[in-house]
Amino acid sequence: MATQPTREDKFSFGLWTVGWQARDMFGEATRPHLDAVDAVHKLSEIGAYGITFHDEDLIPFGSSKDERRQIIDSFKKALEETGLVVPMVTTNLFGQPVFKDGGFTSNDRSVRRYALRKVMENMDLAAELGAEIYVFWGGREGSEVDQGKNVGAALDRFKEALDTLAQYSIDKGYGLKFALEPKPNEPRGDILLPTIGHALALINELDHADMVGLNPEVGHEQMASLNYTHGIAQALWHGKLFHIDLNGQHGPRYDQDLVFGLGDLLQAFSTVDLLENGAPGGGPTYTADRHFDYKPMRTEDMDGVWETAKSNMSVYLMLKERSKAFRADPEVQQALEAARVAELSVPTLGEGETYEQLLADTSAYEEFDAQAKGLEGFNFARLQQLAVEHLLGAR
Amino acid sequence: MATQPTREDKFSFGLWTVGWQARDMFGEATRPHLDAVDAVHKLSEIGAYGITFHDEDLIPFGSSKDERRQIIDSFKKALEETGLVVPMVTTNLFGQPVFKDGGFTSNDRSVRRYALRKVMENMDLAAELGAEIYVFWGGREGSEVDQGKNVGAALDRFKEALDTLAQYSIDKGYGLKFALEPKPNEPRGDILLPTIGHALALINELDHADMVGLNPEVGHEQMASLNYTHGIAQALWHGKLFHIDLNGQHGPRYDQDLVFGLGDLLQAFSTVDLLENGAPGGGPTYTADRHFDYKPMRTEDMDGVWETAKSNMSVYLMLKERSKAFRADPEVQQALEAARVAELSVPTLGEGETYEQLLADTSAYEEFDAQAKGLEGFNFARLQQLAVEHLLGAR
Amino acid sequence: MATQPTREDKFSFGLWTVGWQARDMFGEATRPHLDAVDAVHKLSEIGAYGITFHDEDLIPFGSSKDERRQIIDSFKKALEETGLVVPMVTTNLFGQPVFKDGGFTSNDRSVRRYALRKVMENMDLAAELGAEIYVFWGGREGSEVDQGKNVGAALDRFKEALDTLAQYSIDKGYGLKFALEPKPNEPRGDILLPTIGHALALINELDHADMVGLNPEVGHEQMASLNYTHGIAQALWHGKLFHIDLNGQHGPRYDQDLVFGLGDLLQAFSTVDLLENGAPGGGPTYTADRHFDYKPMRTEDMDGVWETAKSNMSVYLMLKERSKAFRADPEVQQALEAARVAELSVPTLGEGETYEQLLADTSAYEEFDAQAKGLEGFNFARLQQLAVEHLLGAR
Amino acid sequence: MATQPTREDKFSFGLWTVGWQARDMFGEATRPHLDAVDAVHKLSEIGAYGITFHDEDLIPFGSSKDERRQIIDSFKKALEETGLVVPMVTTNLFGQPVFKDGGFTSNDRSVRRYALRKVMENMDLAAELGAEIYVFWGGREGSEVDQGKNVGAALDRFKEALDTLAQYSIDKGYGLKFALEPKPNEPRGDILLPTIGHALALINELDHADMVGLNPEVGHEQMASLNYTHGIAQALWHGKLFHIDLNGQHGPRYDQDLVFGLGDLLQAFSTVDLLENGAPGGGPTYTADRHFDYKPMRTEDMDGVWETAKSNMSVYLMLKERSKAFRADPEVQQALEAARVAELSVPTLGEGETYEQLLADTSAYEEFDAQAKGLEGFNFARLQQLAVEHLLGAR
Repeated sequence: MATQPTREDKFSFGLWTVGWQARDMFGEATRPHLDAVDAVHKLSEIGAYGITFHDEDLIPFGSSKDERRQIIDSFKKALEETGLVVPMVTTNLFGQPVFKDGGFTSNDRSVRRYALRKVMENMDLAAELGAEIYVFWGGREGSEVDQGKNVGAALDRFKEALDTLAQYSIDKGYGLKFALEPKPNEPRGDILLPTIGHALALINELDHADMVGLNPEVGHEQMASLNYTHGIAQALWHGKLFHIDLNGQHGPRYDQDLVFGLGDLLQAFSTVDLLENGAPGGGPTYTADRHFDYKPMRTEDMDGVWETAKSNMSVYLMLKERSKAFRADPEVQQALEAARVAELSVPTLGEGETYEQLLADTSAYEEFDAQAKGLEGFNFARLQQLAVEHLLGAR
Repeated sequence: MATQPTREDKFSFGLWTVGWQARDMFGEATRPHLDAVDAVHKLSEIGAYGITFHDEDLIPFGSSKDERRQIIDSFKKALEETGLVVPMVTTNLFGQPVFKDGGFTSNDRSVRRYALRKVMENMDLAAELGAEIYVFWGGREGSEVDQGKNVGAALDRFKEALDTLAQYSIDKGYGLKFALEPKPNEPRGDILLPTIGHALALINELDHADMVGLNPEVGHEQMASLNYTHGIAQALWHGKLFHIDLNGQHGPRYDQDLVFGLGDLLQAFSTVDLLENGAPGGGPTYTADRHFDYKPMRTEDMDGVWETAKSNMSVYLMLKERSKAFRADPEVQQALEAARVAELSVPTLGEGETYEQLLADTSAYEEFDAQAKGLEGFNFARLQQLAVEHLLGAR
Repeated sequence: MATQPTREDKFSFGLWTVGWQARDMFGEATRPHLDAVDAVHKLSEIGAYGITFHDEDLIPFGSSKDERRQIIDSFKKALEETGLVVPMVTTNLFGQPVFKDGGFTSNDRSVRRYALRKVMENMDLAAELGAEIYVFWGGREGSEVDQGKNVGAALDRFKEALDTLAQYSIDKGYGLKFALEPKPNEPRGDILLPTIGHALALINELDHADMVGLNPEVGHEQMASLNYTHGIAQALWHGKLFHIDLNGQHGPRYDQDLVFGLGDLLQAFSTVDLLENGAPGGGPTYTADRHFDYKPMRTEDMDGVWETAKSNMSVYLMLKERSKAFRADPEVQQALEAARVAELSVPTLGEGETYEQLLADTSAYEEFDAQAKGLEGFNFARLQQLAVEHLLGAR
Repeated sequence: MATQPTREDKFSFGLWTVGWQARDMFGEATRPHLDAVDAVHKLSEIGAYGITFHDEDLIPFGSSKDERRQIIDSFKKALEETGLVVPMVTTNLFGQPVFKDGGFTSNDRSVRRYALRKVMENMDLAAELGAEIYVFWGGREGSEVDQGKNVGAALDRFKEALDTLAQYSIDKGYGLKFALEPKPNEPRGDILLPTIGHALALINELDHADMVGLNPEVGHEQMASLNYTHGIAQALWHGKLFHIDLNGQHGPRYDQDLVFGLGDLLQAFSTVDLLENGAPGGGPTYTADRHFDYKPMRTEDMDGVWETAKSNMSVYLMLKERSKAFRADPEVQQALEAARVAELSVPTLGEGETYEQLLADTSAYEEFDAQAKGLEGFNFARLQQLAVEHLLGAR
């Protein structure tokens, strides 16, 4: 039987996940509204550590100042009562019609100014609630008609927005770290910053690049046929894995937002192994909250919603447990050795060796028996079998 | 009837394209070997400007020094006779069994040393032939078993290799610019640096980042469901579009290497429009050779091969002609204006405006009528219709 | 400039297409409600021939009998005034929460009974309006959890529903032809009858197989990486291409419902060529209405909506015109001949030839020079170049 | 630890799987030739039940009659010595250049005749070896240029070929059952009969439809984003699941031929559950051999090859064991009940109920509370969690 989650596991959920009413492209809502205060209590009850939200998840668009304050106060009270924290906050720059061509990169300048203001207002709230991460998902930043969007100009505006908002956080002393969330498409035909890589590239051009990192989502990378574990490993390498969105997806198709693991389960295993234990062969681990961004199936009532919430944590914990056993298994260690995984951490040139020295080393080229070397096996097959046996709890 | 290509069009072909013997995963070669000298003459005849190659396309693996020299000399003679140039050269680090786990990032260190030497030897040849671009496609740098590859260590080795080779080019005075070519998968289950974005991110960590850019291939980005025009627009924004590989692809599936345009024709139109005219609304154009990296269909004999070679250039020229007419059309200019495409180049903040001033501007937020703004149309539909009419030569 | 559409072109639109208010998975409606009567008048004005609808597009769910009658009467009046026809009608078995696990194949039997009744009521309306085709798109017939759905039992229920409804149409003398519309996924994780093929297979098991055919949608097949032209060619071969849904899609991703042609334009050309001219080499054409099932982009206001409606027809007419020129071009005819396209219609065995005779024909095997034959080219490259030149209006 | 396979498990392997020398689109062979006799002995040793082959896997193309006989005799001897059987045989109609436009549907009639003869010769061998299933994978039957292939004529030729060959088997008393293997693309741009559904549809048009069924491959369906479990469930429903090809794949991309389960592991679980236990709620099971059609990774030497061969069986056995435990678990039975899975087997109409009676049943429609029904949950979430817990051996 799966272990029970505790606060130490640092599991967090978007308010929009358990609160999703299951209205989709082809059908109406099948579930009632979930009050944020109830969500806090229930998440606490099932062992979560944190709750996150978009401004409009908590405070309906168009609320008055008084309504806003009242909602925030109730929410804070629930947090205090339960001990749940708010590790991350984000802005909804995609739901209202005004953002139909984007927030930071709308062709309409007045929309861009409005978007900046909306973010700043919500950053104040994030700071008030003690959030450390502020996420930017630009779902509407993109196009359907290539001729209608100047991508270079859009990246200029993205930079302008992030530079401005970073300065705002710094000046206000909010201490927020920004995390960009890439996605290739849906709802726009093509979204800007479609993958982990594209977002990393943008970050390098920012005035405050040090305070900007990523919030990669499992399904978003897999919608582009990319390996999520590889993607977050590269983000870790750049020191930019600030936050994560865990869920499940079946490759290139609509954004499914399944329960974590219930897409590519084998890759979910290597993801958890990387987050918890660092790369095989050594490397940094992930330290922020384990955040689930999923949608409970539309067929389920609220009991089913909480069942799926628990599933996310349960699957994660099972994979974590098996990843620990995997690493501890002497046969696995032998297999890693046989596959020469750690040898990749040894520089190709010797210490202090120059390319001239390499050129002079005839054993490296002129006398190197490439044919014989080509026949040697890399022993990945054994490692893979051990991984699947550990995943399946068969060892 | 389509225009005839001239040298000024700067069309170039990989020797491996027209020379592909059509051996594939499921079948034997259907075409004879094409001699490099014949390829040069024939390409010159049909109007090409340049020819490119992997070392092994020109010089069979395992050739002796003398054979090597003889081949090079014949090749150079053909270049002189025809005036064809060699704008780009690259190394085959994927065909020989020794590279089955990669060249720069093989878990086996001796393979990595061998790979560096193979590249250096071929860089000497590139310089001898006057090439300006040196391409790196790491088709075998990747994995099938997540547990078998430390991605962070692999990126360290990628960096080490590129830093070393850049220093070599600098010291030798070769003046080469490096261009990385991303690909998401095939032949490896997952390839490192899978997209334009991931490669841009790596470049920022290199010692000689200024001399390293990209060689993005149409089909490789489309295999990841990504918009190629968007991708190269981001590369241009970073000043990194050093070279291109033009071809065609039908989305996420095996690497088809179709004739340019014969996949997503509408996107090919926006690609040519961007390369030739800069972004709608303004921006840099592409200046290096228009390089085709495609595979003539296996059903064709050599006549068919040359037919497809001509098709690449013909399609490009037709799209170029239509893109010029598109830009010149007053109705298109009106439609771009109506879609406010150029407005995206106007900074969101006024000149010298601070975020405090934006916060004080109640017209931007408190008094902004988001609902009314949300009802305004962006007029992209008209622009799209004009684009398709120009593409189809219907205006 | 593109030709103007006329009634003879038989273009029809779903009421839900131009009437889509652009509410999507991530955002609210950006356009006002479009009255059905206005839609009829406007479609007539721009040259359409027909309008189609789901029951709930016309008559809001939960309308009283009187409201229903009033709506129908106004709609019929508009049809009479304009001469627009209703070639096809369908049922919404996906929008209401009650259908969240499907209509005909919900695990809940009472839902299945309700679904049958909803269809029968709407078939009465279809007959009243003179519709000839009744479409079945089972968007909710499917599953996310393999263990939760007995696919065999679901196919039994599909058959039961279609047999019952066919009998109803026969007994009532409605003369309706049924057309199944396949889709691989979205909104369900996996939808039953995911492709043209799967639906054709089911039809063979029905009691009234002769009155059941297909309504294949361009984008639905392309979401499964399938060639739409090939798919409808197989449907034609089985005599089952009763109706079509034309639109555009960029391969495996969310259901984009783009304007026809504005996805894979080259395949749209071969689709129109097949529908209008029959297969190259000979075969049946398509005779029912050219039906567009698309979604105007969410960025557009109502002017943009009508612009996109016109685009669908304009693109179709341009492709039709070019397909006629393509077929009439003597060079194309030569190229078809060179590619031996018509030779495929010649039976492999001679008239009356038995396999014994084939076995005795040594020229067919023992003396057949497979190697020499393998070197012959099929000349598809030239045909493809001619197709693209005709498509681009370059000949 | 995983159970050891025995003959009773009926595991079989293609000779081309363990014998694959790992030559791919981008590189040369990394492994030596594997002798068929050695393959038989080794497969027997590791617990396999059968071996299958394409004619050319066993007998090199162009072998003389004597060589052919010698090879067959050695192979039969090895079978006798080990007790291994040959449950299935197939023809290679894709490797030789002569088949570059297909075998049964090549535009060239002489190629089609040659293909028929090649199949007949190999059917004689299949019968001699006691094979019961004869597979047809038409990897080259398709096109890259839509205008170059008359799909209807191609289906006529497919039918002609299968009718002729069926008659041959009947007349000769071979008792072979034919199994068509669909694939959407690769090596052709688009392959005919791209999915289970399309092949089922063709079968209905054959003269001897009763002796023709399917051999669906996991990866081939998943390359089209289709659910393999759903696909074979439909094949079972039609009584057409004659044989299977088990392997792994990561969605729409090149044909990976991974070890079974090492793609979508969760779906592999429902596949094994269906094959071994029948559909949840009841239905037929699969009875022929469990056949693996995979490619050992190119990085592996022969030890790695045998490791992967064992992995296929080990993963299957682990999944089988868990599927038995899953079905036996009372909580699962409750969950299936709660999800009303068996209720789908109850006809929608009562015994003898007519549609008139359904129309008269006001509780079914007029008085049915669709809103209340829409709020009821389907409890799939619990079932999914139990499935994943059983799969992971966590219960």
